[in-house]
Amino acid sequence: MEEIYIFGHKNPDTDSILSALVLEAIEKTMGIYKAKAYRLGEVNKETQYALDYFGVKAPELLEEVKAGQPVMLVDHNSFDQSVKGIEKAKVIRVIDHHKIANFETHEPLFYLGMPVGCTATILEEMSKVSGIKIDRITAGLMLSCIISDTLLLKSPTCTERDKIAAKKLAKIAGVDMDAYGLDLLKAGTDLSDLTPEQLINIDSKPFTINGVKYQVAQINTVSIEDVLKDKEAMEEAMKNFMQENKVDLFVLMITDILESNSQIIVLGKQEIAEKAFAIKLENNTAFLPGVVSRKKQIIPNIDGVL
Amino acid sequence: MEEIYIFGHKNPDTDSILSALVLEAIEKTMGIYKAKAYRLGEVNKETQYALDYFGVKAPELLEEVKAGQPVMLVDHNSFDQSVKGIEKAKVIRVIDHHKIANFETHEPLFYLGMPVGCTATILEEMSKVSGIKIDRITAGLMLSCIISDTLLLKSPTCTERDKIAAKKLAKIAGVDMDAYGLDLLKAGTDLSDLTPEQLINIDSKPFTINGVKYQVAQINTVSIEDVLKDKEAMEEAMKNFMQENKVDLFVLMITDILESNSQIIVLGKQEIAEKAFAIKLENNTAFLPGVVSRKKQIIPNIDGVL
Repeated sequence: MEEIYIFGHKNPDTDSILSALVLEAIEKTMGIYKAKAYRLGEVNKETQYALDYFGVKAPELLEEVKAGQPVMLVDHNSFDQSVKGIEKAKVIRVIDHHKIANFETHEPLFYLGMPVGCTATILEEMSKVSGIKIDRITAGLMLSCIISDTLLLKSPTCTERDKIAAKKLAKIAGVDMDAYGLDLLKAGTDLSDLTPEQLINIDSKPFTINGVKYQVAQINTVSIEDVLKDKEAMEEAMKNFMQENKVDLFVLMITDILESNSQIIVLGKQEIAEKAFAIKLENNTAFLPGVVSRKKQIIPNIDGVL
Repeated sequence: MEEIYIFGHKNPDTDSILSALVLEAIEKTMGIYKAKAYRLGEVNKETQYALDYFGVKAPELLEEVKAGQPVMLVDHNSFDQSVKGIEKAKVIRVIDHHKIANFETHEPLFYLGMPVGCTATILEEMSKVSGIKIDRITAGLMLSCIISDTLLLKSPTCTERDKIAAKKLAKIAGVDMDAYGLDLLKAGTDLSDLTPEQLINIDSKPFTINGVKYQVAQINTVSIEDVLKDKEAMEEAMKNFMQENKVDLFVLMITDILESNSQIIVLGKQEIAEKAFAIKLENNTAFLPGVVSRKKQIIPNIDGVL
């Protein structure tokens, strides 16, 4: 049987890498497909912390897929955010919690999308429905995804389902959710050895609407002030990225995971962001109190203006 | 609470109308949303037979939705095939068994797509998973959808899941599947009082790929010869339709539901169809032995050429 590739989005976050591993485990138990998890980019420190904690090896890097390759997408559907060659691959499964855009198939497929905070929450639901028992390590990986995507259940993207799943998974994984969660999130805020280019690419996603290409990147931190020390260098990296990728607007969120606020740095068509968030940028930047979610608090506002 | 509209595709077939009614019943039992079924076009004779048999009223006609209207789509996702205004509606749920194309949302949603023969089969799965008991009438409507979409389980689109669901539903509905199924399908082949315009619109769907717009319509019959008596008048209606809707290629399938073959009439860019099916059209028409499924045996071939 041909091997099926499972992967999350480019510039992978914890949910994109670990949910691919979790789906690999679920597929193995179901026994219909021979499917293997891959990643589309570097493993960030938060994800590495979870992998180390539960003693799991990171999936291999996938750079391109050939025409006709059967694939399963987790944590994304947009081809903009997927692997090189995806347009000609054969998408047989999508498990995702994002809006659907820039995605199409030539054949019917299994698509399960749910408006929840994390892909792993959908996988937990799938396992339950399919009668699959989740082991300690898989539960730990799933819990890490939920903690990461919902900032320890505090993000406005977090739903009741995410909370219920997280509690159940913490029990199976045998960890104290709050203590483990804070350690996990903090591991992701160690930015000390990253170049400005790496900083703006830790968790960066492209979007296209009505012909306008925009990019929204997010950096988690426990001190916005600390990250802002690199403001000029990051702006330089953002400018280069915009030129290379023909991006009209770049919004960089620097998110305080303890206080649940974000500072944004905006380059390009700044008037769109000013209108979207009803702000006036000063020196390319503004403080957005209570804003932590790209999906719920950034994208819909920009799409609304566009 | 705002009323949510449920509907299938334009030029509705049995699955599109009855699955909307079934989802309305499921939503009522779940009690989260207040949702009502609508239809986007005339009820065909096959669908009317099922409605009469189980004593159910057809849903009301819906011509347009306003911006922001929350909707649930069954049996389609493509905006080409949906209600006027769909681009600005708020799609909160899709239950479908087709490829995904010309579809996008601004927010995450519940999307359940499965590669099975019929939307009602997915609804049966959903009910099972949600612990919802299906009553006699709802089972009858669901069974009618499966019989219609799979031509009594004989179409190549029919999967094991459809067969299992159909058997189970026939039992709950208290009907003999083969006897009822043949009556249902035959009811749909009474074309006696239809104009050529109505004939080519009984079950007609638009597709767009790489800028090429094409239309594939299907007429079920127990005698291809009988339908071909109207060939010239239907070709005239097809030409008018193509002009009005700027369609590049029109394929009309006349499907013998007893023998499982189709005669096609092709207008417009005929060379695409000739290449897609490795045929030579004579007088705009050709016989395709064993071909009964638009989804499995027509669309992928045309998409392949384009």
